[in-house]
Amino acid sequence: MTYLDHAATTPMLPVALAAMTEQLARVGNASSLHASGREARRVAEQSRERLAAALGARPSEVLFTGGGTEGDNLAVKGLYWARRTADQGRRRIVASPAEHHAVLDSVEWLEKHEGAEVTWLRVEPTGRVTADALADALGDGGDVALATVMWANNEIGAVSDLTALAAVAHEVAVPLHTDAVQAIGQSPLDFAASGVDALTMTGHKVGGPMGAGALLLRRDAECTPLLHGGGQERDVRSGTLDVAAIVGLAAATHATVADRAERTARVAALRDRLVAGVVTEVPDAQLNGPPLDDVVAGGPGRLPGNAHLSFPGAEGDALLMLLDARGIECSTGSACSAGVARPSHVLLAAGADPARARSSLRFSLGHTSTDADVDALLEVIGPVVERARRAGTGRR
Amino acid sequence: MTYLDHAATTPMLPVALAAMTEQLARVGNASSLHASGREARRVAEQSRERLAAALGARPSEVLFTGGGTEGDNLAVKGLYWARRTADQGRRRIVASPAEHHAVLDSVEWLEKHEGAEVTWLRVEPTGRVTADALADALGDGGDVALATVMWANNEIGAVSDLTALAAVAHEVAVPLHTDAVQAIGQSPLDFAASGVDALTMTGHKVGGPMGAGALLLRRDAECTPLLHGGGQERDVRSGTLDVAAIVGLAAATHATVADRAERTARVAALRDRLVAGVVTEVPDAQLNGPPLDDVVAGGPGRLPGNAHLSFPGAEGDALLMLLDARGIECSTGSACSAGVARPSHVLLAAGADPARARSSLRFSLGHTSTDADVDALLEVIGPVVERARRAGTGRR
Repeated sequence: MTYLDHAATTPMLPVALAAMTEQLARVGNASSLHASGREARRVAEQSRERLAAALGARPSEVLFTGGGTEGDNLAVKGLYWARRTADQGRRRIVASPAEHHAVLDSVEWLEKHEGAEVTWLRVEPTGRVTADALADALGDGGDVALATVMWANNEIGAVSDLTALAAVAHEVAVPLHTDAVQAIGQSPLDFAASGVDALTMTGHKVGGPMGAGALLLRRDAECTPLLHGGGQERDVRSGTLDVAAIVGLAAATHATVADRAERTARVAALRDRLVAGVVTEVPDAQLNGPPLDDVVAGGPGRLPGNAHLSFPGAEGDALLMLLDARGIECSTGSACSAGVARPSHVLLAAGADPARARSSLRFSLGHTSTDADVDALLEVIGPVVERARRAGTGRR
Repeated sequence: MTYLDHAATTPMLPVALAAMTEQLARVGNASSLHASGREARRVAEQSRERLAAALGARPSEVLFTGGGTEGDNLAVKGLYWARRTADQGRRRIVASPAEHHAVLDSVEWLEKHEGAEVTWLRVEPTGRVTADALADALGDGGDVALATVMWANNEIGAVSDLTALAAVAHEVAVPLHTDAVQAIGQSPLDFAASGVDALTMTGHKVGGPMGAGALLLRRDAECTPLLHGGGQERDVRSGTLDVAAIVGLAAATHATVADRAERTARVAALRDRLVAGVVTEVPDAQLNGPPLDDVVAGGPGRLPGNAHLSFPGAEGDALLMLLDARGIECSTGSACSAGVARPSHVLLAAGADPARARSSLRFSLGHTSTDADVDALLEVIGPVVERARRAGTGRR
């Protein structure tokens, strides 16, 4: 099996798997006062320090969550509710239309049910949001509850300059949230240095477990809880700490950040060969998103493992199924929207026409990717595209 | 170490641990369309069927969550929002004051921030809520969004007759939610037969993992999502399915329900010996909650593993620490409120005076409990209480 869908989920790193399974066999609720509880608490706090250090945050800024969707919902809704409560005039949300659905749908729910007004940001053809676009949307910021722009796009890999965006937001006193789920271990990233107020990350994109993630939240950022209860995590996120998953999350984050430079250089070289090879086999294939060698703020302007291509005249879903039948696994976009046949909202936001958007595939490489994976794809992509095109013509 | 805090968290069952660790080593996002994704989906759906069968629900009624706190928040807020949206006049919430903080604090947040009005239910001295109390509070039900009453209380073990309560609620067309976190595998429980509309359960109280649980939600119950995004779980709970934890959750639930009768008979006998022994050593110790042999709706009226006792003149926190120093682990109440020294809201709701509430300890037994655990406690409880009483006198 050739797995080219690391952006949907990537295998657990052995070090994270070992740390997590060891902890699963122990008993202790980190909120309990006895020895087993204190030991569980110690392990959780050690993991918090480890994760904070890997991401340039203070331990007290780490709130453990159940994953990326929860982190995004908590940040967007929590910042909105807290700011609106403090000042009824702050009801506007400034957001990119290329966000993950966890952000998009949270924003739209606040608009429909909680009195929010939304300003959608201008998106570059690369999928990037610029500081100018954010400044234009914010205006004097007086009516804005929050802004939210992802660090790196999950579909087409566009990396934005969050440090520049945070500076713009703070000039008008608006807190900035970023969904950095895809960026951790892929882009150089330092929470404190970036200046962003809230950052979502999740375990299963960095070699950690599913069902565990973190929201990094600056101490001065007010955030209304989404989950009320026992008062864990600074009273912002109640719920028994999932210590085993937290251990796995921290171990994976530490490892993936530590070897980022070498690993991403290797993965980017594989990705470049994949894209060049596909274009050789299918000369009219079009790369979506930023150029492969793009640079943003001194780092890669595109996620090193991301290749997103359109194959004019072929349906993405048909391509996916034909490749799958040949043992090659990829995606038409975000796994979370999979199953619903509609053109990618990300490509549409970046200005692509719906036909191009529907004819696209995402190949995403990661820590287990090899030259053999690329070879396997290149061997079949030509005939597969040809067959999908014939099928498409037949259906129309 | 003598672990008498199974109600805070109980060790994973070997069968659940094995199933979960096996799945952790596999890759695949259950929302992905390729073979690995479909296999992850198959495993998750098999677990859904297994969990549904164990709890008397249909598979489509099972929504996987991140645990008990999330399930309670989702049910209480989601049912409130959905009912209020459908009918602006339905703003009243009827709730027991003896609920877990995940319910209590959700209700109070809705009251403070989302226009809810709250009617607190009358609670019996045992900690139980009766059908009469619910009927009185509901009235004609026309202004009620939902009612919520826990199946079994986490502190004093009182089991309520949810089937009777659901009948009362449905007479006036009010949906009923129940927090059954402590009841699964302890009380006979059948979701469909009970008639309740929504039921919260979590993994780590039944020998499954932390960070995974389920909300059972009847197909006709409208519930606004707390987490928006990819549209998983009937669009009510978005987020990548945590397949490994779900496998562990289902395996544990199946096992704990399958051996409920024999295990709880064994555990209840241990618990009865524990209580009798403590009262022998400390003659003025008082049992809180229902009598040990209480019966409700044909089943135990008190959780079989629960012993909750007050030791007049001794502080619960001091007792806990003195026992811990002797290798005996227990709790002063719910682990989630631990760390905050205040009298149990559950005992206060059941009519106890604050002094009695502050002098109490919860011993909770579970699947690994043995006669040796009881012996260990009985050996030290007398001197420990004596010492705590002297310390308390000294401090006053």
